[in-house]
Amino acid sequence: MKLSSLGEFGLIRKIRKLSSRTSPLTVIGIGDDAAALRISPASLLLATTDMLVEGIHFNLSTTDLYSLGWKSVAVNLSDIAAMGGVPRFCLTSLSIPSSVPAEQILDFYRGFNALAKTHHAALVGGDTCASGNGLIISVTILGETNRKWLITRSGAKPGDRIFVTGTLGDSAAGMELLQAGSRSQKSEVRSQKVAASFISREEKRLIQKHLRPEPRVEWGKKIAQARCASAMIDISDGLSSDLGHICEQSKAGAIVHSGKVPLSAALLKAKERLKHAPLQYALSGGEDYELLFTVPPSGMKRFAALNIPAMEIGTITRGRKLLIIDEDGEKKPLKPTGYDHFAR
Amino acid sequence: MKLSSLGEFGLIRKIRKLSSRTSPLTVIGIGDDAAALRISPASLLLATTDMLVEGIHFNLSTTDLYSLGWKSVAVNLSDIAAMGGVPRFCLTSLSIPSSVPAEQILDFYRGFNALAKTHHAALVGGDTCASGNGLIISVTILGETNRKWLITRSGAKPGDRIFVTGTLGDSAAGMELLQAGSRSQKSEVRSQKVAASFISREEKRLIQKHLRPEPRVEWGKKIAQARCASAMIDISDGLSSDLGHICEQSKAGAIVHSGKVPLSAALLKAKERLKHAPLQYALSGGEDYELLFTVPPSGMKRFAALNIPAMEIGTITRGRKLLIIDEDGEKKPLKPTGYDHFAR
Repeated sequence: MKLSSLGEFGLIRKIRKLSSRTSPLTVIGIGDDAAALRISPASLLLATTDMLVEGIHFNLSTTDLYSLGWKSVAVNLSDIAAMGGVPRFCLTSLSIPSSVPAEQILDFYRGFNALAKTHHAALVGGDTCASGNGLIISVTILGETNRKWLITRSGAKPGDRIFVTGTLGDSAAGMELLQAGSRSQKSEVRSQKVAASFISREEKRLIQKHLRPEPRVEWGKKIAQARCASAMIDISDGLSSDLGHICEQSKAGAIVHSGKVPLSAALLKAKERLKHAPLQYALSGGEDYELLFTVPPSGMKRFAALNIPAMEIGTITRGRKLLIIDEDGEKKPLKPTGYDHFAR
Repeated sequence: MKLSSLGEFGLIRKIRKLSSRTSPLTVIGIGDDAAALRISPASLLLATTDMLVEGIHFNLSTTDLYSLGWKSVAVNLSDIAAMGGVPRFCLTSLSIPSSVPAEQILDFYRGFNALAKTHHAALVGGDTCASGNGLIISVTILGETNRKWLITRSGAKPGDRIFVTGTLGDSAAGMELLQAGSRSQKSEVRSQKVAASFISREEKRLIQKHLRPEPRVEWGKKIAQARCASAMIDISDGLSSDLGHICEQSKAGAIVHSGKVPLSAALLKAKERLKHAPLQYALSGGEDYELLFTVPPSGMKRFAALNIPAMEIGTITRGRKLLIIDEDGEKKPLKPTGYDHFAR
């Protein structure tokens, strides 16, 4: 069978089947944002890992190495945040082409540590090796939470309200602007130069959101510790896909009001320079690293007390359909449109 | 500064400096076989990660995917073994070129799980993505040990005796045979076919040691729990390099008797087909995944009671020199000759 016909999620399902639980200590294994492992009766270890590959996840003509280091921590911290955990330790591996100067690699670690230290996550190990083709990054982050604070993707119930932090679509729009800028300059340019050369303050904000996302670790922890949410995920694939993950694992459906999806002023102002409508980036863009979570009626009072800047965008429903109500009040299917690495 | 002039270990030192301890929970961070992290007063979490890159660490013309999965666990388990730990969990990431069929990827996980399950290590997470160029593997293994059982690289003292498990050099010799076989067949061949087509039982044993190393997890655990060793490392770079790591971190020297370095009957029998003398593979070959450790006089009785098949090959000395006594009784410098990814 070809990988393209199996698809990324098909492959994961197969791997999961091949890797059935061999330890009673595994509380959450493959299939959630992070693995949750019982370490002592009171505390759970969280472990998550992500690989970033040049030409697939990033392009050195549209990012500097400091931003790349920052982002490689951010994407993993975001997974810890989505479990409501506290990050503790990082391990990072790099496969480095001989064309990359050492100083740039150190810049990578500077960016890495800048964000990791903000969240009190210590770099405690890793691996470095040569690469025949392109830069490859693998980061593992270990965190902790408490058994009673753990939030998975599978706890949403019909009637729960759906919330999202921050604004969506900025990162995907920022990436488009960066790529357009890079093409227009024809030669390889560092992202900072692109940013400086052609853009408005709004566009800079979109690009910043793409290059240096801020993982919502504090909010995730607060939501978990208040025990007010029934399910949570971070938005890495895009709202439609990630809400789809919650619904699939919670065996539920959802209805989203398009008019309530939070869009930034920067995204709305930049729309003339963008190929698609702002809502499109919010639904399908991905790489927002915001938190998407569901709150049952019984949790609403505790949630409100947290004062987290989150927008209510819809409701969990019976059945398994994902629907969106557009500006004219019409219900349409909301199709998961996230990136499948093996689909093409 | 170019990476080639900084070198792999220079780079690691720089990264280490940039990543100074930010958490009092880090007992062992960058620079040992695995990170040791305090989780509860009684138990330490061990975390180790390794990246394997096609064209750098392996070649698909001389390995099958099952063996590759096996080996990618083995190299990490070996690091846990060298800390005297008990493996618990694995995370693995793959970046996969579209040319690799799904079945081969599943074979990778079969080989991975075959060895992981033997050691009761559950696969609990990871990442899969596309690759523009070649297969890339990143594995993280988490393990546990007890504070009082922890063995690092830095505890060796003058007068301690140096031991090594198993036999050395087989893996490097096996790799040479595989590469020669692959070249002689001109076209791409699977390792099993190479193994079947041209080799004696001895040569098959060398190739097996290269493709499917057996990490010494049980022995490492016994040595740790008997509290009889002062320092321990696994042999991944080669005896000369890895003994060099122990000496450097223990601020000591060592003297090794070449006649005592354990060589397998298979290696000695295959020597006509090999480019170098058997001892050369043992000193510089690497990828043996045996344990190298030092035992102080006070630990000898407890160590002997363990009945572990290990050979005494020399003694830790004052000063910082690494010496080898050859067959004629002459002392010569023993130069670390391990692979430096960025040296060439």
